[in-house]
Amino acid sequence: MLRSFTSYHPGLLTDLYHPDAAYVSWRTGRNGMTTFDLFARRAPFDGAYMLVAGIETALEFVREFHYDDEDLRFLSQIRDYDPRFLEELRAFRFSGEILAMPEGSIAFPHEPIMRVTAPFQEALLLEAGLLQAINLATLIATKSARITHAARGRRIAEFALRRAQDPYVVARASYIGGATSTSFLGAAFRFRLLATGSIPHALVQLFDSEEEAFLAVAESYNRYTLLLDTYDARRAIHTAVAVARRAQQELGHSLAAVRLDSGDFVEGSKYVRQVLDDAGLREVRILVSGDMDEFRIAELLDAGAPIDAFGVGTSLGAGAGSVEHAIEGGALGGVYKEVWYEEGGLGEPKIKVAGEKSTWPGRKEVYRIGAFERDWIGLENEPPPPGA
Amino acid sequence: MLRSFTSYHPGLLTDLYHPDAAYVSWRTGRNGMTTFDLFARRAPFDGAYMLVAGIETALEFVREFHYDDEDLRFLSQIRDYDPRFLEELRAFRFSGEILAMPEGSIAFPHEPIMRVTAPFQEALLLEAGLLQAINLATLIATKSARITHAARGRRIAEFALRRAQDPYVVARASYIGGATSTSFLGAAFRFRLLATGSIPHALVQLFDSEEEAFLAVAESYNRYTLLLDTYDARRAIHTAVAVARRAQQELGHSLAAVRLDSGDFVEGSKYVRQVLDDAGLREVRILVSGDMDEFRIAELLDAGAPIDAFGVGTSLGAGAGSVEHAIEGGALGGVYKEVWYEEGGLGEPKIKVAGEKSTWPGRKEVYRIGAFERDWIGLENEPPPPGA
Repeated sequence: MLRSFTSYHPGLLTDLYHPDAAYVSWRTGRNGMTTFDLFARRAPFDGAYMLVAGIETALEFVREFHYDDEDLRFLSQIRDYDPRFLEELRAFRFSGEILAMPEGSIAFPHEPIMRVTAPFQEALLLEAGLLQAINLATLIATKSARITHAARGRRIAEFALRRAQDPYVVARASYIGGATSTSFLGAAFRFRLLATGSIPHALVQLFDSEEEAFLAVAESYNRYTLLLDTYDARRAIHTAVAVARRAQQELGHSLAAVRLDSGDFVEGSKYVRQVLDDAGLREVRILVSGDMDEFRIAELLDAGAPIDAFGVGTSLGAGAGSVEHAIEGGALGGVYKEVWYEEGGLGEPKIKVAGEKSTWPGRKEVYRIGAFERDWIGLENEPPPPGA
Repeated sequence: MLRSFTSYHPGLLTDLYHPDAAYVSWRTGRNGMTTFDLFARRAPFDGAYMLVAGIETALEFVREFHYDDEDLRFLSQIRDYDPRFLEELRAFRFSGEILAMPEGSIAFPHEPIMRVTAPFQEALLLEAGLLQAINLATLIATKSARITHAARGRRIAEFALRRAQDPYVVARASYIGGATSTSFLGAAFRFRLLATGSIPHALVQLFDSEEEAFLAVAESYNRYTLLLDTYDARRAIHTAVAVARRAQQELGHSLAAVRLDSGDFVEGSKYVRQVLDDAGLREVRILVSGDMDEFRIAELLDAGAPIDAFGVGTSLGAGAGSVEHAIEGGALGGVYKEVWYEEGGLGEPKIKVAGEKSTWPGRKEVYRIGAFERDWIGLENEPPPPGA
């Protein structure tokens, strides 16, 4: 895995059948201008929409795409390609045109998120890299948008690193979807995101008593968060209040938030809120973490839990569905389909007729009318709809 | 995303609360030798076992772990750490001991997959990076093992790139789990895996007829695979047979396999097998792809589908569960828990008592007795069990 950081071969970010198909195209001389649409037939999580992300990564990939000597040596070892084809790959740089929805926009099923127009071989060789970038980031951004919506204005902290399949993409796409911070320092550094966190159970256990641990934290930071559930949250909140008062008086250090990571969050947060309020600590926020997703957050808020912020890990890290709600997750089924082919000056729309897997032919434009009043997909040479 | 290839900051592959907790430990001088166990409380996919992977990546991460000037500047910007603490981080190199199960071994719930013994701050700062590496790779390797088992000796080709959340890890872990090849060239190059593939629908569509497309493929390679379902698989198999005969006679090129990517795989594969056999092409294999997982593969084989190999994408790429079978997926819930702490020459086992989240205290050894007759978890200073 670390090796992926020391060498990067964008030309090999492809499935074998792409250079194989490019080779057949090269041998037969069929390499006309082609348009591929990248779109999803269904929104993830049984939802209506996608929140587009990954465009920036996808375009960086296109800019970097090339074959170096090592790549070509590898290709010549695994396939008996004509050496002249490999020489053409060596000269390969993307020469086409890409249109895409902006990062962070809403897309609906069948709307082209990206449209690639280029000679067939170029357009084809990019397929897997474009899909990988956009499928993953859009999946996570959409999940984050759903979670943010469920939280009704409360903050979402992304806590996914240890379960995230690609932690950098997860942190960035979660932010695009509405998360306000990440626990992952590498992503905070790289993308200039807000980093937040509390303390781990292991730190509380490091001390002989919870009070000693809380005091050590309160002395270390002028604003700090305490974790309540290492032993017994209902006892811990009283210790936290005592420590907070002392740290405030002696050091001017403030308790910013307390965190519950297990137990009954509805009763627990109500109890904790009451204790904090009774102590005059109304500004101290309650953060809850542990198996959070959009359904769980909505349930907790519906039950009147006085929670101010949610830490969300696994469900963002994997773009998870919900077995309980019979909702698939983990992957966005974005596809990349040929819709136009042009050779010898003659262009023709391409269509695949296969039931619900059919494609819509031709080079398209998507128009958004009003504030999501409706979207209009037209051919590029058709006039825009009225009101667009 | 590409940026992740140009700069790598292992010291920031951590959640903010880890340096925060290390700081409290530093300020208070509590930094005794600690042992953390990395384990999972439950196997993924409601299964009994995990196939361990990610150890190599995890250990590379530990070897690389350090803080450079840029990292320290970033930390000083986001937190008011004492500068002397940051100087200690600059000198940080892992000085402890790590014991781990070998890559590719079977682990059961609660068995330590990895055991880290080091000063508290060192052991703690590694937590997220170790978990991220092992959780993901072990999840995918276990999924691959389940799929390989379901295929009863037939080959599994990993086709996950476009849906894989981390394609390099997916390809490598899928191989550890039993997949025999990957479609992803970058992983084939990096890990020296067998790359396989067929042709995309777009290549078939590039030509005026399916026959022309098949001929172009047959002429290009001395062993080739044809994709049957671009238009109508039952017609395509007859075209494929005609092309295969001609290419064999005229060029000595062999049809290795045909691929079905949609439709009724049971009836489709039976029909295709019959046509191939009638044409004397008994050695031509049938590959099936499209939404494959261990359940679907078992169903197809139970129904007598004469399939020789399966291409598996999404379910490997995301380590997916199954909504249909009410099985969670997408993440392995591996945890990293303190089980021992030693200060001033006095060591003590650490335990967390919290119902099913309780930890087992002490430094442990795992013994495997017989061929999975039983596993024995003992303390390191206990004698091994008889027969181990």
